[in-house]
Amino acid sequence: MIALILAVGVGLITSLLFTRALIWILTKRQMGQFIRQDGPRSHITKRGTPTMGGIAIIFATILGYSAAAGWMFYYSGRTPRISSILALLLMVLMGMIGFLDDFAKIRKEQSLGLTPIAKVILQTVVGVLFAVLLINFPNEDGLTPGSMAISFLGDFTPSFATLGVVVGIIIFVIWINLIITAWTNSVNLTDGLDGLASGISIFSFAPYIIICFWQFLHSCQIDSSSLCYNVRDPWDLCLVAGAITGACFGFLWWNASPAQIFMGDTGSLALGGAFAAISIMTHTELLAILIGGVFVMECISDVIQVGFFKLSRRKGWKRRRVFKMAPIHHHFELLGWSETNVVIRFWIISALLASLGMAIFYLSWVQGVTF
Amino acid sequence: MIALILAVGVGLITSLLFTRALIWILTKRQMGQFIRQDGPRSHITKRGTPTMGGIAIIFATILGYSAAAGWMFYYSGRTPRISSILALLLMVLMGMIGFLDDFAKIRKEQSLGLTPIAKVILQTVVGVLFAVLLINFPNEDGLTPGSMAISFLGDFTPSFATLGVVVGIIIFVIWINLIITAWTNSVNLTDGLDGLASGISIFSFAPYIIICFWQFLHSCQIDSSSLCYNVRDPWDLCLVAGAITGACFGFLWWNASPAQIFMGDTGSLALGGAFAAISIMTHTELLAILIGGVFVMECISDVIQVGFFKLSRRKGWKRRRVFKMAPIHHHFELLGWSETNVVIRFWIISALLASLGMAIFYLSWVQGVTF
Repeated sequence: MIALILAVGVGLITSLLFTRALIWILTKRQMGQFIRQDGPRSHITKRGTPTMGGIAIIFATILGYSAAAGWMFYYSGRTPRISSILALLLMVLMGMIGFLDDFAKIRKEQSLGLTPIAKVILQTVVGVLFAVLLINFPNEDGLTPGSMAISFLGDFTPSFATLGVVVGIIIFVIWINLIITAWTNSVNLTDGLDGLASGISIFSFAPYIIICFWQFLHSCQIDSSSLCYNVRDPWDLCLVAGAITGACFGFLWWNASPAQIFMGDTGSLALGGAFAAISIMTHTELLAILIGGVFVMECISDVIQVGFFKLSRRKGWKRRRVFKMAPIHHHFELLGWSETNVVIRFWIISALLASLGMAIFYLSWVQGVTF
Repeated sequence: MIALILAVGVGLITSLLFTRALIWILTKRQMGQFIRQDGPRSHITKRGTPTMGGIAIIFATILGYSAAAGWMFYYSGRTPRISSILALLLMVLMGMIGFLDDFAKIRKEQSLGLTPIAKVILQTVVGVLFAVLLINFPNEDGLTPGSMAISFLGDFTPSFATLGVVVGIIIFVIWINLIITAWTNSVNLTDGLDGLASGISIFSFAPYIIICFWQFLHSCQIDSSSLCYNVRDPWDLCLVAGAITGACFGFLWWNASPAQIFMGDTGSLALGGAFAAISIMTHTELLAILIGGVFVMECISDVIQVGFFKLSRRKGWKRRRVFKMAPIHHHFELLGWSETNVVIRFWIISALLASLGMAIFYLSWVQGVTF
């Protein structure tokens, strides 16, 4: 518990200070964001706000987790577990891809960065690596960080391995890549208004502090009397979720309207990767869709918009748009809601979805349902 | 658990719809707020925004709790307990005092309402009534809704009754009145920026959903094996906290910057009263100071400002102010933070204090410490 307070606290304070430092350095070097040219007009004033604030989030998360892990090692000689290392690894690698993108944008002085192909290839390489690592490192009970089944509140389907080892692994790798791509893109799309992505990240990662803590208390190794969870390292994942939550709070302090810094692709890809990693390793991939529901909504709105536009052009229909502008937060802005209003209302929705997710998680435990 | 989801859900939806209706009705009748004439200049544009939105919060809370209580009665014949009734009673009575004040302000077309004396007398009458009711209604175990001791995480001091029955009751009544006055005034002072008081109320009441739930799970009647809580009706208080949280979310939807409605004294006194009631009846009066820490900070800043001003005038000192303006949120506004920035940063502080409060509550349970 002290370790958790350390993780959140160090994550928070590091992020608060380091983001402030980043604002200072980046502003001095005039490394500002170039706003997408097809966004709402009111956003043009945001030109020049420094970006790549995600560096602070990643750094603060690592420091927060390290502080907690260091304290545990000092106090009881407990070493960090592989699940948290994998989560941090995916976060950092995705953050690095985002950083390349952000950096390319600034160099070329426009809002487009890496070529889409290059980005997809890099993400896939990282995704495949992560998937393969997931099913290694069995502990004494044979548990690996990831299971080869689709999970809602626990393993929902039979393991992919029942399809044969080779086929099973191929499908598993594709499934994991799908999850990672979905989350990184969703967070990336959400990151379009001051404080939106960072705030919703808080409401998405904070529930995992509770969920992982509960999985730890009722791990099958500790408590097999009631419904128990076969998760490899819930306590370490709890600390990672805590460190990220703290880091997001510290970042939001400066990112809240009017934002003094943006997280950029560095931040959104890193947070998306971390969220995917935690949801996979806690065996709650499908529950995560509810908890991170606002991210999902943003992504789906974009898919619908683009899909409908292409479809209607091919069919020759007149009205070619479902939303005034996608992702959906711009739609509401163009409906006349102020930016702050959109952000706070999306936060409210996110908080409610997170609460609902936790309620379902707890209820299923009470009822003894696991799937 | 279903009852809790009902309490939050019905509170939320009622508040969303009813606040919208209030905005429509009050705007039509031109019953707007008259902004304090000594506040920051930028606030003058807020003239005319309808107030008394607290009516919606109170109504939604009652409906949310009733829905939960009704469902429990239908499902298992369980009748509502006295603690929740008392909490709602204090909330409604304080809301009515606030309403008289708000209404008087609108009639007189200025920012001052009831005379301070009248307000204090009314509040004291309600406070004394509430205190007396607290130590009646023993259940089969002899537990009354309130205990006659000062509590941090449980009863901290010996009961006031050890001082003799009459003296004990007098001190108890004074103590309860002190708590109620402190909270109602604190929430009232906090209610000066769009979404500030309603947001911080969410972060103050939501922890009590968890705390009451935990007290219910580990009530001495159910589980006397571990550290147990001698609270009369934790489950019903959990539902009240849930209904208020839902109601505040629904209200915040419309109250977020730019606010379309203010809660007014109706809302701030009602929420302050409810918070006092819940903290007293869960025996966590001192822990509540941490959980509702931002309210406390606002109140203390005001006391310091006024106190220092009076002192320095008497002593003839030159600089007569500690803050640029009190309560402290105006101080930060005058330092150049945007209104939204102040609100979101205060929310962040509030969320962190609430988390810390819950962590202390849980840690003390793990360690078996109760005081």
